[in-house]
Amino acid sequence: SGLVLVKNPHLDLMEEDVLYHLDLGTKTHDLPAMFGDIKFVCVGGSPNRMRAFAQFMRRELGLAGAGEDVADICAGSDRYAMYRAGPVLSISHGMGIPSISIMLHELIKLLHHAKCRDVTIIRIGTSGGLGIEAGSVVITDTAVDSSFQPRFEQVVLGDVVVRSTELDKDLAEELLACSRDIPDFPTLIGHTMCTYDFYEGQGRLDGALCSFSSEKKSEYLRRAYDAGVRNIEMESTAFAALCGLCGLKGKSCCFPLL
Amino acid sequence: SGLVLVKNPHLDLMEEDVLYHLDLGTKTHDLPAMFGDIKFVCVGGSPNRMRAFAQFMRRELGLAGAGEDVADICAGSDRYAMYRAGPVLSISHGMGIPSISIMLHELIKLLHHAKCRDVTIIRIGTSGGLGIEAGSVVITDTAVDSSFQPRFEQVVLGDVVVRSTELDKDLAEELLACSRDIPDFPTLIGHTMCTYDFYEGQGRLDGALCSFSSEKKSEYLRRAYDAGVRNIEMESTAFAALCGLCGLKGKSCCFPLL
Repeated sequence: SGLVLVKNPHLDLMEEDVLYHLDLGTKTHDLPAMFGDIKFVCVGGSPNRMRAFAQFMRRELGLAGAGEDVADICAGSDRYAMYRAGPVLSISHGMGIPSISIMLHELIKLLHHAKCRDVTIIRIGTSGGLGIEAGSVVITDTAVDSSFQPRFEQVVLGDVVVRSTELDKDLAEELLACSRDIPDFPTLIGHTMCTYDFYEGQGRLDGALCSFSSEKKSEYLRRAYDAGVRNIEMESTAFAALCGLCGLKGKSCCFPLL
Repeated sequence: SGLVLVKNPHLDLMEEDVLYHLDLGTKTHDLPAMFGDIKFVCVGGSPNRMRAFAQFMRRELGLAGAGEDVADICAGSDRYAMYRAGPVLSISHGMGIPSISIMLHELIKLLHHAKCRDVTIIRIGTSGGLGIEAGSVVITDTAVDSSFQPRFEQVVLGDVVVRSTELDKDLAEELLACSRDIPDFPTLIGHTMCTYDFYEGQGRLDGALCSFSSEKKSEYLRRAYDAGVRNIEMESTAFAALCGLCGLKGKSCCFPLL
């Protein structure tokens, strides 16, 4: 049916659903009227960048008010920022798996309550590149963990639950085809590695702690490259797992490199 | 000596240290002049709340400009917000371990470069309470993981490194003694459990996914209570481990409950 699935039998028993970190709710807002026509959701870490992206989309789509400032739909919360450009929703998610997970739980419920259909969700964020040209864009085919496995291990009430992180291959090919029309953006499809830590987790030598040698770092990053990893960031496994389980169509993600 | 330790031999070899997510650096800013007299650092998730806290501290300390707005020292970055009130620095860290870890790595290097001495760091955040009166404040003696163990498991280049999460017991007692002067704030010392996930990780029944029954939730939370847990949040184990390793004196954290 193209609707967004919510896999939680408890939700039906709730009189009101407060999307706390988005400052939205089923009793305080008419979610179908506000969001029912959304077809694309783009998410990224930085609130300023997601506002700039919404402004860019308004210009690209030739929408009314394209030159004006866009209003933050979640202005009542300082956890995330959300902007609209026609059928496109642009939302920030902060940094790391826990932060994007909170946003995605509430976003998925929002799309469910609003009865949105056939929604495509794309993460557009920054990342570190691995053995590729500076300025390249990586379209993720599979998100992998720090052992290069396509899985997201989530602790649910103290027990580890393993979830799949496969992303939509057709959408990846479609995005790659689009990139051929845009010169000066080398674009490729590859695995994206997701870590819990920016400094030690990604082999950076400039953190407050660094418990490894530059040789060990090089050896690890070489193994990652050999496993098909082309960029490293901090949200993709949770993004892939949560969107996949809730049937968000055409999920994929691509990353302009820092 | 009371100085903040940085355990990274690579840092001495760097000509410049850019604290990227704070929009500060050793070549662009005179860090000793800006921060050398800092004695207390308070950190919390929400940027708005940390601004309000800095304004509150200015009034409490009778500082000049107490009624005026405070400037965001990290205004050039939308990742974190930082405010000063005399010897007190107030910084936001976003939500979850990866987000607070990035901030703490850069904060610890900042205090190191600024040659700060005898700094006390306190996390003041919101949390869920466990079997305690609504509105209580929990002062953490030990941060525990979702198996109720006093440890922080960090993946460093694919390998799991286990770190201690003990917090300063003297500071906890000192904060508890302070609380006795403030009526209407029931305050206690207890363990704080830190999870990677807000919805399924903490047993909430209102996420987009919920793969457990309310009975399983109750049983888990009862085991947590029996292990000494009095509140649940998403940053304390990383906070305790990182501050502990870098010799940040008097580290502890307390949490007003939601």
